[in-house]
Amino acid sequence: MSAFSRFTPLVSALPSTVPFVGPEAIERQRGLTVKARIGANENGFGPAPSVLTAMRDAGGDIWKYSDPENHDLKQALAAHLGTSAANIAIGGGIDELLGQIVRMVIEPGAPVVTSLGGYPTFNFHVAGFGGRLVTVPYVNDHEDLDGLRDAVKRENPPLVYFANPDNPMGSWWDADRVVAFARAIPETTLLVLDEAYSETGPASALPSIASLIDLPNVIRTRTFSKAYGLAGARVGYAISTPGTALAFDKIRNHFGMNRMAVAGAIAALKDQDYLLEVVAKIHAARERIAGIADANGLRALPSATNFVAIDAGRDGTHARAIVDGLMQQGIFIRMPGVAPLNRCIRVSVGPAADMDLFEAAFPEVLKSIG
Amino acid sequence: MSAFSRFTPLVSALPSTVPFVGPEAIERQRGLTVKARIGANENGFGPAPSVLTAMRDAGGDIWKYSDPENHDLKQALAAHLGTSAANIAIGGGIDELLGQIVRMVIEPGAPVVTSLGGYPTFNFHVAGFGGRLVTVPYVNDHEDLDGLRDAVKRENPPLVYFANPDNPMGSWWDADRVVAFARAIPETTLLVLDEAYSETGPASALPSIASLIDLPNVIRTRTFSKAYGLAGARVGYAISTPGTALAFDKIRNHFGMNRMAVAGAIAALKDQDYLLEVVAKIHAARERIAGIADANGLRALPSATNFVAIDAGRDGTHARAIVDGLMQQGIFIRMPGVAPLNRCIRVSVGPAADMDLFEAAFPEVLKSIG
Repeated sequence: MSAFSRFTPLVSALPSTVPFVGPEAIERQRGLTVKARIGANENGFGPAPSVLTAMRDAGGDIWKYSDPENHDLKQALAAHLGTSAANIAIGGGIDELLGQIVRMVIEPGAPVVTSLGGYPTFNFHVAGFGGRLVTVPYVNDHEDLDGLRDAVKRENPPLVYFANPDNPMGSWWDADRVVAFARAIPETTLLVLDEAYSETGPASALPSIASLIDLPNVIRTRTFSKAYGLAGARVGYAISTPGTALAFDKIRNHFGMNRMAVAGAIAALKDQDYLLEVVAKIHAARERIAGIADANGLRALPSATNFVAIDAGRDGTHARAIVDGLMQQGIFIRMPGVAPLNRCIRVSVGPAADMDLFEAAFPEVLKSIG
Repeated sequence: MSAFSRFTPLVSALPSTVPFVGPEAIERQRGLTVKARIGANENGFGPAPSVLTAMRDAGGDIWKYSDPENHDLKQALAAHLGTSAANIAIGGGIDELLGQIVRMVIEPGAPVVTSLGGYPTFNFHVAGFGGRLVTVPYVNDHEDLDGLRDAVKRENPPLVYFANPDNPMGSWWDADRVVAFARAIPETTLLVLDEAYSETGPASALPSIASLIDLPNVIRTRTFSKAYGLAGARVGYAISTPGTALAFDKIRNHFGMNRMAVAGAIAALKDQDYLLEVVAKIHAARERIAGIADANGLRALPSATNFVAIDAGRDGTHARAIVDGLMQQGIFIRMPGVAPLNRCIRVSVGPAADMDLFEAAFPEVLKSIG
């Protein structure tokens, strides 16, 4: 296939692999229809009706570019978080922000510390800017704070990534451990503290904004894609010192935000009652998934997220067979990518109908695999 | 202001200036309210009612990430263009695609050829990846095809940018000239042919898809932001050989598209009758702007876009005074950034109410400036 001959050596050497294959692609490849979409850690409970209304109302102004300063959303977030708008950068979901962060600190060959089996899209961005991944194994299905700190000490990387609560295992550390970890990172290493699941964990797992807001080398990333149910809208934000937040302006796509999405995010922040309702539903669905695991003689790992990792008891091949078998019945789930995490399958929460489908299909699939 | 201390040297050296200041920022800074938003080449006629309906209907699925392969939109574009889906890459507007293109071919210090006074956001991306701009002056308010070709020959750049129809002057070259130019570019230089305004120019200005689709070193960029009235949705696309199109997959944000926006773009392609209506309105509004210029003793430049450059007859200081004077009355327009283009003001088309406001305010502002 004829392609331009002079891409940079870095880009020429990049693989064409993608971080995740979407459920739509699987449907097309395998001629299946997804009946229960519980694999991408989306939130099938959806956004608040007030959010849908706000987005639809914003349609009338869709001919206008969205405010490139994201003024109103920053103000709303600042009020919500009890911080200043200057502490906030806005992006098209955490994925876009991660790409910008990597770009800002990574030159080809630079080491980047993360957990072995951590977020693939972060790794995709690191590869995309030529960084060298230095991975630290999970310990007891938790990201290894001591191991990450030791790797940072050893490698002196410009960047370290840590998610709390964690994806793909759903585990978490309490806030005091997280704050101690962040404060032990040298000021020449930027810590991305990915808090995509901040709303669904125990309050004790979430460091206060004040506890880290003085550190120029810490960026906390959050999203409207998970608890707020707006994955398809693409709104995320970063929290850091004003100086660090301002750096995004040097490279970001200033006119990149969707106007309806921004309206939806602002409305979502206003409807905290709905958020509480959804979080309660997420907690209940987590319990239900754990019960289904138990009923099939398997152990569900404790989760602070909107998904549950179920230890399928064997290896990655076995877990893959379960994922494939469920997909064959229209149940879309995913699984961690590397050992030993890949002994697990990962099931996202969803409404009762999705849980019913999973509950019915899971024992059949397990039985068929043997 | 305390910022992280170890951004890359490239990022550390970048200025904090932005390509454009949004009208919302001007409103906040100056305590004004924009009454006629005719400065950002948006399309105040808006998208088709069918598009608004499609976007609003997609709201119910906004909890799902959009298909990362953009399958349906690519198929719809392929059918519309008479090409293959493999020839198409999707992005969050041309701005995002330009950033990706620059990233794929530019290493620090590499020359990039463009016109002096051409699209600032392209230049922003070039600076962001450390490219060195080599600019070619306009000739008679047209991008200088011979000059661009000579600069490419001299500099052997990995990248050259050319917009047809042009922004900010609204001028254009006929298709045969554009095709000859593209075919004269060596295969080691990637030509970005920016066709943001492809729908609003004369048919004779638009090369057929077939005329350039065999060239791996040509990427044509198009958008739903202009004639389709969806600037706030953020959907653009690139047309190239399959091999070149595939390269975007190495670096793009695969889960980056807004689901409602994609639904809107697909619906927009289906409603070509509406597009024709809007293009007729754009043509009429261009005539009206030209008439207003004439009534004030000024010359409107011929335009193939959704805006009109008016030669204000003096220098950039004078044009700036007009822009500022109009803004003081709530009329938001813009102007080219460099001489001699900046003797002009640039007025976007809009509905009659906007044109009325401009018509009333323009002579007053000219008179007040003297």
